[in-house]
Amino acid sequence: MAAVSVSLADLSSAVAERSGNLLQVTIVGAGDVKLSGVAALSSATRSDLAFLADPLYLSDALTTQAGAIVLNASDRDALLSQSASRTAMAVCDHPHVWFAYAAQILVPDEAADPGVADGAHVARGARIDASARIDAGATVGDEAVVGAGAWIGAGAAIGARAVIGEGTRVHPRAVVLDACRIGARCVIHSGAVIGGDGFGFAPFDGRWIKIPQVGSVVIGDDVEIGANTTIDRGAIGNTIIEDGVKLDNQIQIAHNCVIGAHTVIAACVGIAGSAKIGRGCRIGGAAMIAGHLTIADGSSIGPATAVPSSVSETGHYTAFFPMMKHREWERAVAVLRNLPELRRRVRQLEFERKVAEPKPEK
Amino acid sequence: MAAVSVSLADLSSAVAERSGNLLQVTIVGAGDVKLSGVAALSSATRSDLAFLADPLYLSDALTTQAGAIVLNASDRDALLSQSASRTAMAVCDHPHVWFAYAAQILVPDEAADPGVADGAHVARGARIDASARIDAGATVGDEAVVGAGAWIGAGAAIGARAVIGEGTRVHPRAVVLDACRIGARCVIHSGAVIGGDGFGFAPFDGRWIKIPQVGSVVIGDDVEIGANTTIDRGAIGNTIIEDGVKLDNQIQIAHNCVIGAHTVIAACVGIAGSAKIGRGCRIGGAAMIAGHLTIADGSSIGPATAVPSSVSETGHYTAFFPMMKHREWERAVAVLRNLPELRRRVRQLEFERKVAEPKPEK
Amino acid sequence: MAAVSVSLADLSSAVAERSGNLLQVTIVGAGDVKLSGVAALSSATRSDLAFLADPLYLSDALTTQAGAIVLNASDRDALLSQSASRTAMAVCDHPHVWFAYAAQILVPDEAADPGVADGAHVARGARIDASARIDAGATVGDEAVVGAGAWIGAGAAIGARAVIGEGTRVHPRAVVLDACRIGARCVIHSGAVIGGDGFGFAPFDGRWIKIPQVGSVVIGDDVEIGANTTIDRGAIGNTIIEDGVKLDNQIQIAHNCVIGAHTVIAACVGIAGSAKIGRGCRIGGAAMIAGHLTIADGSSIGPATAVPSSVSETGHYTAFFPMMKHREWERAVAVLRNLPELRRRVRQLEFERKVAEPKPEK
Repeated sequence: MAAVSVSLADLSSAVAERSGNLLQVTIVGAGDVKLSGVAALSSATRSDLAFLADPLYLSDALTTQAGAIVLNASDRDALLSQSASRTAMAVCDHPHVWFAYAAQILVPDEAADPGVADGAHVARGARIDASARIDAGATVGDEAVVGAGAWIGAGAAIGARAVIGEGTRVHPRAVVLDACRIGARCVIHSGAVIGGDGFGFAPFDGRWIKIPQVGSVVIGDDVEIGANTTIDRGAIGNTIIEDGVKLDNQIQIAHNCVIGAHTVIAACVGIAGSAKIGRGCRIGGAAMIAGHLTIADGSSIGPATAVPSSVSETGHYTAFFPMMKHREWERAVAVLRNLPELRRRVRQLEFERKVAEPKPEK
Repeated sequence: MAAVSVSLADLSSAVAERSGNLLQVTIVGAGDVKLSGVAALSSATRSDLAFLADPLYLSDALTTQAGAIVLNASDRDALLSQSASRTAMAVCDHPHVWFAYAAQILVPDEAADPGVADGAHVARGARIDASARIDAGATVGDEAVVGAGAWIGAGAAIGARAVIGEGTRVHPRAVVLDACRIGARCVIHSGAVIGGDGFGFAPFDGRWIKIPQVGSVVIGDDVEIGANTTIDRGAIGNTIIEDGVKLDNQIQIAHNCVIGAHTVIAACVGIAGSAKIGRGCRIGGAAMIAGHLTIADGSSIGPATAVPSSVSETGHYTAFFPMMKHREWERAVAVLRNLPELRRRVRQLEFERKVAEPKPEK
Repeated sequence: MAAVSVSLADLSSAVAERSGNLLQVTIVGAGDVKLSGVAALSSATRSDLAFLADPLYLSDALTTQAGAIVLNASDRDALLSQSASRTAMAVCDHPHVWFAYAAQILVPDEAADPGVADGAHVARGARIDASARIDAGATVGDEAVVGAGAWIGAGAAIGARAVIGEGTRVHPRAVVLDACRIGARCVIHSGAVIGGDGFGFAPFDGRWIKIPQVGSVVIGDDVEIGANTTIDRGAIGNTIIEDGVKLDNQIQIAHNCVIGAHTVIAACVGIAGSAKIGRGCRIGGAAMIAGHLTIADGSSIGPATAVPSSVSETGHYTAFFPMMKHREWERAVAVLRNLPELRRRVRQLEFERKVAEPKPEK
């Protein structure tokens, strides 16, 4: 990542433009302060932009050496009430989002110098855009297409007939297998495997007969796929990841799943075959989702939660065992194993009570 | 995958042969319809074979454009009772299995043109069968053996003294480390790592002392290993995967485990060291199995289930927390934490009842 | 791994030296027996060292063909009381640790012949120590530093400006991304990914805006990182793995986590962002740890345990649902879903009892 140097005033114009003029700031103090990086409040130096997104960190903001802080109006007031500010401020409604855009500008992705490196292995029938970059050790299969400005990292493998969209970055050692299609501006992190066979076998005569997985994986635009995440190709038909989906590391998505647009899934989640996750969902880390079900748009699944059946009503769902000291857990579990018996005993008490002391129903 | 074109009649002969004559079909309608692919009922065209394995999809079968459908006798009757069939039918007892074999024939694996590609790195002492294929970027270590018809994909790594059996396919970027032995007709998917060190350390003086892992991994015939699955080498002695085992993606199998023949394990499962899983078991996704235990042949472990101790009686075992709306979960968990107290209160009520109203035991 | 041949007496001197004279043994029997390998009691031959760490295996020790056994004094007495020993014994207080050191000597890691292999891709600006080894297919980026005696395996990828410490081994296909720093004597197993982007996005206008991850990963000395484990770079500031930490396979460590020195984490664990795990902790397999929390030094987390909040008191914590036969689980879960209702009924019974039969409080 190479840093640039830009004044706070120019940075605010650049963020406005990048956000489609949805993000505007009011600058308090020196708009001409030159910024060239981002840092935490506590470790920032004069050339850094920092952000204050939680009043919890007001004391850090009071003592920060940052050249500028982005924050909301309420935190600005709190800050100014306690100290004359030495630090320029960019005041806006969404400081975290503004900071995200500003950081994209201050610490831009490394430019992908176009060209196929020595030691890259590109099949003769592959079509590589002249502005794309293929690093050493990468392989690109026959009839694959690599779009404008795309970057295939060291040792990444792109299969035959695969399509890598414009501006998409495939990090070192990621794998996109035959005929899978990746949209524009995606990021595929190292070790991710897109398009392995779905897990399909029919039991017969004491063995498992493989069902060829003839579908593919189709990934939309602006999708990010974490390190060592796996997305299997469809059995028949495709596995589909819609636009704007963000997948963390170590996720498993089985054949024929559909992940709705702008859904975000934290690390270590597993999703079984043919599950259909709605748009705009948030799935917590290590959640495990069964196959052949549907999760309603906008739903939120808690971490470490097993989802055994469809979620038809949008909401926030959770299911994990509460952590206890080991001894207490052992005791709770002993009772849990016999819950039906405990309920029976409560019923018996209720019955005896009724028999012993009949009284009018209330 | 390259498609072929074959009549339904010829296809049924080919499936019979491939199944050792265990699978026979009765053809209803045009046995000479030419098939060249497989598809779902709803999207199939005239050259596709489709299957009906669940009466739920009868309506799709009534309107399908497929050239032929494989289904059982009962679904055939249901179908014919509702419409004069325009579609040829292959009627048999195991339509899903018949479809699996038929798909293997209609959509065969890509042929592995023999030879070592430019850009593959094969150690001088490795023995590569003349009919094997080694793709660009793959590495094969000294004294490794790659059998007839085996295919080592782009960038896969085969360690020194490793053995890859006949017809086995190692997909791009999979890793088989030193001295591991893979049987015939196996499939190792991308990103799988076979033969990393087992996790063995002895605590001493505030640190962890590494115990060299001198065993290996031995994998039988017809085993499939999913993308990014890891199987560690034994500490002393080997980790063993028996014939016909099917492992999905993102599975962890620790040192010195034994996985019995024809056991099938879904994605995201972890199995700790020296566990011995029986033959013909089915392990659900994200199950977590402790070390040094035994699971009886033919057992079934539910998804997301922690298995802390041996399963000596064949059966179906489950253990996951039921999913609830978050607020309900919070309430249930509050009681769960105090289950021993709740049981004590029930006991107290029972005791008081007994003291208050002595009656003859029934 | 190449074996050496050494007498038991010389081996005991070598272990003493390697352990900083903390481990001494008393030799019983033939100190001149020549050893060249390690094995289990039941399969050892005359040239093997075996160990007895659990009296459960006394019968194996009585019949072993091993050239020497390492064991503690109590097991030695038990053994000698049952048989005149034909086997040399190394008697000490920590037989497992002594065995670990002895195995390191008897089965040493393969020596890394220095040099950059044909087919390795090393950027011109990288600095590779003359005693380091870079295997075929590996890539090393610009300004990266590879220390003395380090070994970069086949197809491993080292990013620009990354630092690999002295004697560290990076196994085939492992990935260390730009600017990450690995200490001395570390082991990075195949498929591990160090330094992928942290999962940072700000929600805005129905989409997720990427927050550039400008931190790095800093790993101390003597750290082991398992196959396919992922450690993300910090958002701002670094993700830190302190000295002596041992991570098993398939672990996910998110951005800005700190893992305290000599903590050991079993396979399949996920740790969310900014979690701070103390020193000397033991985390069981498949535990899932939430972000922005702290776990006290020396704590032990059970397997398959979700940790939703900080652990401020050192102890042993557990949280997994007890496994049951599926039918029993269904019944227990039915009651569990209605625990608040069951508690209400117990309260009602208690209330009625009180009203019906007022008596003095005890």
